[in-house]
Amino acid sequence: MKFLAAINIMPLKEILDPQGKAVTGSLKNIGLASIHNVRIGKHITLEIEAENTEHAHEQVNTACKKLLANLIMESYSFDIKPL
Amino acid sequence: MKFLAAINIMPLKEILDPQGKAVTGSLKNIGLASIHNVRIGKHITLEIEAENTEHAHEQVNTACKKLLANLIMESYSFDIKPL
Repeated sequence: MKFLAAINIMPLKEILDPQGKAVTGSLKNIGLASIHNVRIGKHITLEIEAENTEHAHEQVNTACKKLLANLIMESYSFDIKPL
Repeated sequence: MKFLAAINIMPLKEILDPQGKAVTGSLKNIGLASIHNVRIGKHITLEIEAENTEHAHEQVNTACKKLLANLIMESYSFDIKPL
């Protein structure tokens, strides 16, 4: 069975996000001063071939832990749905 | 009223995603060969001060169009919820 996973990887709240800070400043410059606290992370989509949702879940979790996210600085969450 | 917006910005389907291709290869190398078609984009969260949801929606849309997304190569979608 094929599944589609959508993963969000974000910098931890405790960690400064300089890219987000810069974007907050730029938004102010183009007249959007009511936007604050911009934080920028990664959105990853992938297709996965697995027997069932649990198995797909397990593999995506492994991918996040071993390769996609840096758990010292980032947290991740994901959704899986059948394709 | 304060709102939290979560924005996903992804490379268009027609456009090659070399970073995603590289990650697909790396996942294969660590034993996750059942994962295909990895695509990597940005996930952005921000807080916004607005009178109502429509107004917040409008401002986030402007931010995406004017600054956050490159509409020639990327598409965006977002969710807004009250904080």
